[in-house]
Amino acid sequence: MTGILVLHGPNINLLGERELEIYGAMRLDELDQRLTDAGRELGFSIQAVQSNHEGVLIDALHEARNWAAGVIFNPAGYTHTSVALHDACAAIDIPVVEVHLSNITAREDFRHRSLIAPACAGQICGFGVHSYHLGLHALQAILESTGN
Amino acid sequence: MTGILVLHGPNINLLGERELEIYGAMRLDELDQRLTDAGRELGFSIQAVQSNHEGVLIDALHEARNWAAGVIFNPAGYTHTSVALHDACAAIDIPVVEVHLSNITAREDFRHRSLIAPACAGQICGFGVHSYHLGLHALQAILESTGN
Amino acid sequence: MTGILVLHGPNINLLGERELEIYGAMRLDELDQRLTDAGRELGFSIQAVQSNHEGVLIDALHEARNWAAGVIFNPAGYTHTSVALHDACAAIDIPVVEVHLSNITAREDFRHRSLIAPACAGQICGFGVHSYHLGLHALQAILESTGN
Amino acid sequence: MTGILVLHGPNINLLGERELEIYGAMRLDELDQRLTDAGRELGFSIQAVQSNHEGVLIDALHEARNWAAGVIFNPAGYTHTSVALHDACAAIDIPVVEVHLSNITAREDFRHRSLIAPACAGQICGFGVHSYHLGLHALQAILESTGN
Amino acid sequence: MTGILVLHGPNINLLGERELEIYGAMRLDELDQRLTDAGRELGFSIQAVQSNHEGVLIDALHEARNWAAGVIFNPAGYTHTSVALHDACAAIDIPVVEVHLSNITAREDFRHRSLIAPACAGQICGFGVHSYHLGLHALQAILESTGN
Amino acid sequence: MTGILVLHGPNINLLGERELEIYGAMRLDELDQRLTDAGRELGFSIQAVQSNHEGVLIDALHEARNWAAGVIFNPAGYTHTSVALHDACAAIDIPVVEVHLSNITAREDFRHRSLIAPACAGQICGFGVHSYHLGLHALQAILESTGN
Amino acid sequence: MTGILVLHGPNINLLGERELEIYGAMRLDELDQRLTDAGRELGFSIQAVQSNHEGVLIDALHEARNWAAGVIFNPAGYTHTSVALHDACAAIDIPVVEVHLSNITAREDFRHRSLIAPACAGQICGFGVHSYHLGLHALQAILESTGN
Amino acid sequence: MTGILVLHGPNINLLGERELEIYGAMRLDELDQRLTDAGRELGFSIQAVQSNHEGVLIDALHEARNWAAGVIFNPAGYTHTSVALHDACAAIDIPVVEVHLSNITAREDFRHRSLIAPACAGQICGFGVHSYHLGLHALQAILESTGN
Amino acid sequence: MTGILVLHGPNINLLGERELEIYGAMRLDELDQRLTDAGRELGFSIQAVQSNHEGVLIDALHEARNWAAGVIFNPAGYTHTSVALHDACAAIDIPVVEVHLSNITAREDFRHRSLIAPACAGQICGFGVHSYHLGLHALQAILESTGN
Amino acid sequence: MTGILVLHGPNINLLGERELEIYGAMRLDELDQRLTDAGRELGFSIQAVQSNHEGVLIDALHEARNWAAGVIFNPAGYTHTSVALHDACAAIDIPVVEVHLSNITAREDFRHRSLIAPACAGQICGFGVHSYHLGLHALQAILESTGN
Amino acid sequence: MTGILVLHGPNINLLGERELEIYGAMRLDELDQRLTDAGRELGFSIQAVQSNHEGVLIDALHEARNWAAGVIFNPAGYTHTSVALHDACAAIDIPVVEVHLSNITAREDFRHRSLIAPACAGQICGFGVHSYHLGLHALQAILESTGN
Amino acid sequence: MTGILVLHGPNINLLGERELEIYGAMRLDELDQRLTDAGRELGFSIQAVQSNHEGVLIDALHEARNWAAGVIFNPAGYTHTSVALHDACAAIDIPVVEVHLSNITAREDFRHRSLIAPACAGQICGFGVHSYHLGLHALQAILESTGN
Repeated sequence: MTGILVLHGPNINLLGERELEIYGAMRLDELDQRLTDAGRELGFSIQAVQSNHEGVLIDALHEARNWAAGVIFNPAGYTHTSVALHDACAAIDIPVVEVHLSNITAREDFRHRSLIAPACAGQICGFGVHSYHLGLHALQAILESTGN
Repeated sequence: MTGILVLHGPNINLLGERELEIYGAMRLDELDQRLTDAGRELGFSIQAVQSNHEGVLIDALHEARNWAAGVIFNPAGYTHTSVALHDACAAIDIPVVEVHLSNITAREDFRHRSLIAPACAGQICGFGVHSYHLGLHALQAILESTGN
Repeated sequence: MTGILVLHGPNINLLGERELEIYGAMRLDELDQRLTDAGRELGFSIQAVQSNHEGVLIDALHEARNWAAGVIFNPAGYTHTSVALHDACAAIDIPVVEVHLSNITAREDFRHRSLIAPACAGQICGFGVHSYHLGLHALQAILESTGN
Repeated sequence: MTGILVLHGPNINLLGERELEIYGAMRLDELDQRLTDAGRELGFSIQAVQSNHEGVLIDALHEARNWAAGVIFNPAGYTHTSVALHDACAAIDIPVVEVHLSNITAREDFRHRSLIAPACAGQICGFGVHSYHLGLHALQAILESTGN
Repeated sequence: MTGILVLHGPNINLLGERELEIYGAMRLDELDQRLTDAGRELGFSIQAVQSNHEGVLIDALHEARNWAAGVIFNPAGYTHTSVALHDACAAIDIPVVEVHLSNITAREDFRHRSLIAPACAGQICGFGVHSYHLGLHALQAILESTGN
Repeated sequence: MTGILVLHGPNINLLGERELEIYGAMRLDELDQRLTDAGRELGFSIQAVQSNHEGVLIDALHEARNWAAGVIFNPAGYTHTSVALHDACAAIDIPVVEVHLSNITAREDFRHRSLIAPACAGQICGFGVHSYHLGLHALQAILESTGN
Repeated sequence: MTGILVLHGPNINLLGERELEIYGAMRLDELDQRLTDAGRELGFSIQAVQSNHEGVLIDALHEARNWAAGVIFNPAGYTHTSVALHDACAAIDIPVVEVHLSNITAREDFRHRSLIAPACAGQICGFGVHSYHLGLHALQAILESTGN
Repeated sequence: MTGILVLHGPNINLLGERELEIYGAMRLDELDQRLTDAGRELGFSIQAVQSNHEGVLIDALHEARNWAAGVIFNPAGYTHTSVALHDACAAIDIPVVEVHLSNITAREDFRHRSLIAPACAGQICGFGVHSYHLGLHALQAILESTGN
Repeated sequence: MTGILVLHGPNINLLGERELEIYGAMRLDELDQRLTDAGRELGFSIQAVQSNHEGVLIDALHEARNWAAGVIFNPAGYTHTSVALHDACAAIDIPVVEVHLSNITAREDFRHRSLIAPACAGQICGFGVHSYHLGLHALQAILESTGN
Repeated sequence: MTGILVLHGPNINLLGERELEIYGAMRLDELDQRLTDAGRELGFSIQAVQSNHEGVLIDALHEARNWAAGVIFNPAGYTHTSVALHDACAAIDIPVVEVHLSNITAREDFRHRSLIAPACAGQICGFGVHSYHLGLHALQAILESTGN
Repeated sequence: MTGILVLHGPNINLLGERELEIYGAMRLDELDQRLTDAGRELGFSIQAVQSNHEGVLIDALHEARNWAAGVIFNPAGYTHTSVALHDACAAIDIPVVEVHLSNITAREDFRHRSLIAPACAGQICGFGVHSYHLGLHALQAILESTGN
Repeated sequence: MTGILVLHGPNINLLGERELEIYGAMRLDELDQRLTDAGRELGFSIQAVQSNHEGVLIDALHEARNWAAGVIFNPAGYTHTSVALHDACAAIDIPVVEVHLSNITAREDFRHRSLIAPACAGQICGFGVHSYHLGLHALQAILESTGN
């Protein structure tokens, strides 16, 4: 099985508890379980990490170099402010797919620009928790095309 | 079968003939055939339209209201300059998924902002022709969740 | 009777079918009929054109030089992005009155600036379909003051 | 008769005396007389106020709540700099129609943005003194449509 | 008793009459009465002034130098546009506390920047009429710490 | 007693040790003691947390949902750069009052904009340690008005 | 004797009482007396007006058309925010010389741009009360060169 | 003979009929005839296309790949707004020389930036119809240097 | 006699020969003669230098420290682009008065900002050659007030 | 023979020695020789000047008024920073054609804007040394059309 | 021996493992060893800390006040986004020298501005690991000049 | 001995004579002597040039190609305004180290951006005259690493 890191940024631990009209009603543990199941069908062994700490997210990306073939990353509030996470994505040589629950281009101005996107393989946003599932399929396509 | 419009914007007719390092080697007719096949498995009857004319794209979006349940739209060069296409996406009541072959956030400055994205359900970019396939899966999820 | 071109830009063909809270419930054919009737009382023979194609709008403006004494123009989504339409309005020597159904200054940022307005005689916005009627009266005043 | 406030902003008292090529040759008292006559035919009892004082203009807008059904407002130089007048227009519950003698979009950069427009029903500019007449017709349409 | 000027800017005279969802339901005379009562307990003799005239506000600030030990100032719409009021606050040597009923940072863009704030001791916003009460307590603390 | 979180951002642990001319001479433990005492009189049981770690601040805000009725938050240097803290304040359903020791509008340009303020009930800045005390009073008013 | 209006903007009435390091120690009445004396030697009959009210300043400029051959104008805080005063200077056909006590280009950013300057004959700033004296000499030169 | 496409953008069909002071008095058909004659001497077989439709211009560029060795392109009003035309120029592997009749850098601000220029071999502007002739010579030099 | 440097920047050597409508008809040698005469009456021994070389202007400013008590400086085209000249003015401890023939605030955008002004005592612009004469009087006032 | 100044700006003396991939392999003396030969066939007597000194370039432009009928000017690095050279081009009454070896619009951001272009007859860029030859032809056309 | 903190920001732990063309081939432990050795010769006892956590970096800076005489700080990705680190550098009274491996001014736009630099003694960038060595020498000079 | 050019930009000739609080008390000749001595120990034969003339600085950089292995360059006021010096640094194939006496990031806004830095090997600023000494060490490291 191919190792895949699913990395959730700040405030995602509250998923399903608050602001349901924006982020949906599914809780994080349920989402992680569903992604684990869906990943298994694609031959992926998924490990999920959530942290509100920018440094923990960077550490997790660094460590993924040793065991994972790719990353699904929802940087949440750090999307728009973190050059350090951009650099972490650029520094590791496994593909990172950026995902967002909501359509960030249709929200506040300060959410329109992703500092992290240029260091990722691609971006998927706006499909709720399904954005993560599409991210898994995107990773599968990338890994197949590069023979990994 | 559910009707789905796959709409390609300007210069996409040259797919597979030019700038292969950015857009890949598959030609447009082959891509459309593959999407048709993939769509059939999802219960989608796909009709593909390509045009270099902004007005033709708007017309196609308008007409899709009468026969399609959703749209996969690669607005290409019009992504960054067309309020009229934004308005067309906003005016029709079927979901539009914006797709891009390349990671537009990692290219020239003038490609960083999508005027069309706020009127779409979501955006997928950077996965080559696979962006379209992911778009089909995204549409399927949207249609399922809304009972269409 | 004095010829007058009433020119509708992109997505106006959907008038009365979509986004009624912004654009109102009257359909385009009914609007054109009402303008024709109202124009007749002012001595105007009105010809109405709608197109989603920027080029068709430019062509219509050029042709109006041969038969019309003035233009009522709702450039819709092209208002904010078209230097070519600005140049077309500037190139013809009959007065153009820019009209908008909604108050564009109270909507999204990208609707605040009209590239076309500097080439027009004046601008009327925010009064729904009545903006067109006011435009006819404005044209009448202009034509009277210039002895046309 | 329905009361209507016609409110003229700073420097409009010089109308017809200076910069005729921009603002035209009619003097303010003549304009007010013509508007009074035109208003009478529409069932409007017009009261005209001109002041160079921002505070007087705000006061007049406030007082209009007690006797008028609508306002024709030419904020002149305060158009581009007064949040207080924006707030006054927003605070009263009668419709305000913004008018300008000249086409402000075709003049200096600092005249392109109206801070007041978002709080008005609509805007009419560029038709000389006729902008006011069109404003009366616009008010009539608004009052009819809202049953006032 | 220590004299304190409570200074209300433009449109605050409509307090409790309009836009209750933003500004609350208390009327200005009731607010002034409550502040007078609250001030008395703090040893403050409060004089309240409201004006829609920028110049009257400047004059009141100047005169306060002769009788007041501090100012509670809600500049309202002038907050964002008046260098002259900034200069008046800077020119007098008694502390000015800027207050706002609403959270101006969460409203329109043009309300985000206060030109006056740099000349004030501090700023309190977002607590409705309670912003004024907090302002009185802030003034008390300032006057105590400076031995006035 | 009602639980209240007093949350201090980065570098506030140095309070009273450095840059006394900007931040004052009181040390953090003394400030916390005084707030505890003042809170007790208002019926508040105060718990104070200081951290230089953005993630710890987010965690503390999340946990406050379980035990506190409101938050006094001085985000210090994160005020101007953290969307993640904005999102944390928006995600919890207890009121957050933003406080600052200094008048941030009168300091360097990069301190003028608070990314966090739009997600808070209100903002108090410029009164030194008294800003916190005013924050407690503001919270009391909010909790009373909402019946909490 | 040629009539000359010396017009002082907001807060200039405090001249010599506050912020002496910026504006100098001379009081306004002494300055006006000195300008009157100096003007007499140049054949000027000087009338000085000071007001904190933008509208009063506009009125004074309008009235000057009837009795004065030129204006020395220190718009003070309105320099940077008033299109209405720009328009008043442009509307009258007598020359206006803009003067400032301090070197506004070397102070805060918001003082760097004069909205009024383009409508004036010229600008003199930075020489304290001597700026006014130089303004009188400038007016004399203008009036001589135009034969007034 | 070497095939060369001469491509004229929007409103150029009015050449010689309007705004002669900017664009000169020669009509389009005469210009095309002169370019054909001049091209013949350089060994060029010229085909001229004019359209007001952005899509037609893109199509013509695409088709030129099949028969032409280079393009002289005056994008007119689309110069400043069309990423799609930029992409079309970049997508074809024959050199494109951008020409303009007027000196666009000395006109309105919105004409200063060419979105298309970075995808062209070079740019010639300001020499009236002679800009086209210089473009032919430039193409000749490019084709010689690349051995085409 | 007090030494004064009159320093003319680039293109001023063409004074009186070109663009008379902007700069006037007096030639540079005549202007220098008049300034010499006028200076003599003020007790000034004037030395005039003109150069098109930024470095020569800097050198002249440096040398003036050894013989002059003040400088009248028209930096012309370098006004808007030279930090080096700003630094030279700031580095010498004699007052520099910036003068301009034309009202630079009423010309092209790129002439609105003076990089040099913050390092000067004050600025005089818009009075043609009389700007220099006023500059001499300004210098006299400065030297008197500082006892030089 | 008609005199023509060919003026090369800073660093052009290194032509053919450095950065050949951008500027080409021809050395400056060879270029000047070729331009002299090519000019002779057009009836031009060419004098070439190169300098790294902005002032020398200004001087050369001034002197050209006395002997030349036109100028070919490559301002190189001064293109983007020199108002003084703009003014020199505007001050002389012979046409100046701006040329560049490279396509400046396709290079770094700071090369996109030419401060000098608005004062020139036209601009040619991107054709290597051939840009100069095209410039000679452009000058010929200009001189013929103006009868010089 | 004088204590010196060498502080490495996010992603520097990957030094020598990734992106060698930008950051060089030396690993972090080797770099720290070399700095320790080099420091010993200068009389410095070096303690090196690396963290991907902004808060840990702030804590380390705070603690350095107790044992170190100066800091060599490479803030890496936090350079451009952290006001909190700026404040930490400003809050401690020992000199901080900012160093960067690469020339940040020659990389992406978002790396051009250092928020931290204004709070440091100076900045050294572009010399690879040698930037750190130069930083030690810079610290030595600072400590000598201040007698520490 | 390896030749090294030490190049000082405008106003550096006044070193030690003016603005000592910013630039320090050492005079330029003393600095050059110290650098010569320090260079000798590193095997460098140093030649120092100072000029206020941008062109002279460019010339000196060009000539250094013939005799020097590297350059220490303090561009002073030209740092922020000279593309020509950027191009000169880029055009020569010896390394240039940019140095500044003061920490330019902590001074006026117009000193924050270096146009020259992207063409240099690295930048050192803020250490007074020691910046030059560090520059020599940086050059030594570069030359060693490249085997020069």
